[in-house]
Amino acid sequence: MSILVVGTVAFDSIETPRGSAERVLGGSASYFAVAASFFSPVKIVGVVGEDFPEDYLEIFSQRGVDLQGLKRAPGETFHWRGRYHEDLNVRDTVELRLNVLTGFSPTLPESYRDAEYVFLGNIDPGMQIEVLSQLRRMRLVACDTMDHWIQGSGEALRKLLQRIEMLIINDSEARLLSGEHNIVRAARSILKMGPKVVLIKRGEYGVLQFSDSSIFSTPAYPLEEVFDPTGAGDSFAGGFLGHLARSGDHGQGGLRRAIVYGSVVASFTVEDFGLQRLTRLSVEEIEERYQRFIELTDFHT
Amino acid sequence: MSILVVGTVAFDSIETPRGSAERVLGGSASYFAVAASFFSPVKIVGVVGEDFPEDYLEIFSQRGVDLQGLKRAPGETFHWRGRYHEDLNVRDTVELRLNVLTGFSPTLPESYRDAEYVFLGNIDPGMQIEVLSQLRRMRLVACDTMDHWIQGSGEALRKLLQRIEMLIINDSEARLLSGEHNIVRAARSILKMGPKVVLIKRGEYGVLQFSDSSIFSTPAYPLEEVFDPTGAGDSFAGGFLGHLARSGDHGQGGLRRAIVYGSVVASFTVEDFGLQRLTRLSVEEIEERYQRFIELTDFHT
Repeated sequence: MSILVVGTVAFDSIETPRGSAERVLGGSASYFAVAASFFSPVKIVGVVGEDFPEDYLEIFSQRGVDLQGLKRAPGETFHWRGRYHEDLNVRDTVELRLNVLTGFSPTLPESYRDAEYVFLGNIDPGMQIEVLSQLRRMRLVACDTMDHWIQGSGEALRKLLQRIEMLIINDSEARLLSGEHNIVRAARSILKMGPKVVLIKRGEYGVLQFSDSSIFSTPAYPLEEVFDPTGAGDSFAGGFLGHLARSGDHGQGGLRRAIVYGSVVASFTVEDFGLQRLTRLSVEEIEERYQRFIELTDFHT
Repeated sequence: MSILVVGTVAFDSIETPRGSAERVLGGSASYFAVAASFFSPVKIVGVVGEDFPEDYLEIFSQRGVDLQGLKRAPGETFHWRGRYHEDLNVRDTVELRLNVLTGFSPTLPESYRDAEYVFLGNIDPGMQIEVLSQLRRMRLVACDTMDHWIQGSGEALRKLLQRIEMLIINDSEARLLSGEHNIVRAARSILKMGPKVVLIKRGEYGVLQFSDSSIFSTPAYPLEEVFDPTGAGDSFAGGFLGHLARSGDHGQGGLRRAIVYGSVVASFTVEDFGLQRLTRLSVEEIEERYQRFIELTDFHT
């Protein structure tokens, strides 16, 4: 079952305590697409500028990602520059150039409109709704957002939340969206806004999943060296939806295993700069770390 | 199998975003003892002042805690005054009066010296060593410490670490003790200092357990309302060692189940001020929440 993702395809310039990288391939749709491609076919919707190199398109092609919906527009590619603190949970955006993203209106190729699994990556909620409106037979729609849209496009976001099954956000965004500091209350409040499932990402502390009838909590995979946390959240979403699309199991057990697969893929992402670790990752490594995740967390068998 | 605990027995004055409490029963030994008493008999070593009320002794007696080693000294009881932020992971110590704790030298009653399970709560490492030296047949010694002792009594602490099996500390203390920011590296570095097992408490994010051959990671039990986090760490240690003493199972499976029991007891502690929730807790509630913990974390069965 193939997955459609809309989001940013970007140049990232990253500084971490371990080193730095200039204009590497980044963006929410990029991380999501490469992560999900280990589980299911992926179709990407987005825009890049005239400066976007063939090498980077090649990264997607090698993972079998469908690029029909990736538009090339006049101008420069979206560029994010960020700096991480010694505490890698904290980062500053040093520079943000929207470039071709300004005024982008996503039009889906005909071959995309029957996509059943959809991830609306972190972009303008208006644009997320535009994509949703072009789809005919979605089985499962998940979306991400961020503080910028929660504060600036609250109304569009509220409308969107009524039309999706799952929201995947981090803990500070969940607090901002709900106005609740306690994370359980925050999740319950967001469930009332529409989504049937809320996934709360807590970085190195793992993920919480809330639905009306169940809570699932899982730690992150512990690593001795985190090189670059960029894209961990989108890689998580990619592994998560990728496994759901592959298994077709949307029950509580299926959701939970998908969350662990997402956590596993994210744990590889942060082992190197940008998408470098994912481009040399194998399905066998994912399965092996999934088994280690069981060993890491099991206490009752 | 009974457990000996040495630590503080205190008056706590606490302010949280939910309310405040004056001079309630607190201290590391108090929380540990009451928590552990649900699993195994507990013997307490500590000191209180002339102002320590009979009502508070009664709280221990009702839980069957052996108070022979709790000395009453001339002067006032140790008093801690603290204030929690809206983010309950952050607290300020507003006032700290050591009072009778100054110059206290723990002498163990003869009936205590054959204790096999020992918890050296957060006090001066010199005092922790003094207690250890009076014991004849320990099977398992765990200890806690804090930034104050890591910075001020490093040498005594290093000696102590060579004589114990388990260190139970929080993440910021692990970073301070090891000089490593990454928590996996921090734990590996501490394992080299002596203990066979390092437990790292991460508050609302759960617990990590490290040994030479294994890592275990478990989230905390999610609560809609955290009333007062005081004593959560010592309650965790009490439930953990209490279950170990009860089961006698020191293997990896036994340790992991003990960690979950510790997490369960700690999750009750924070539901009310001070020791109030633990004093009205039942073994049935503990077992029920342990089952819920399995449901919360299981993904592969």
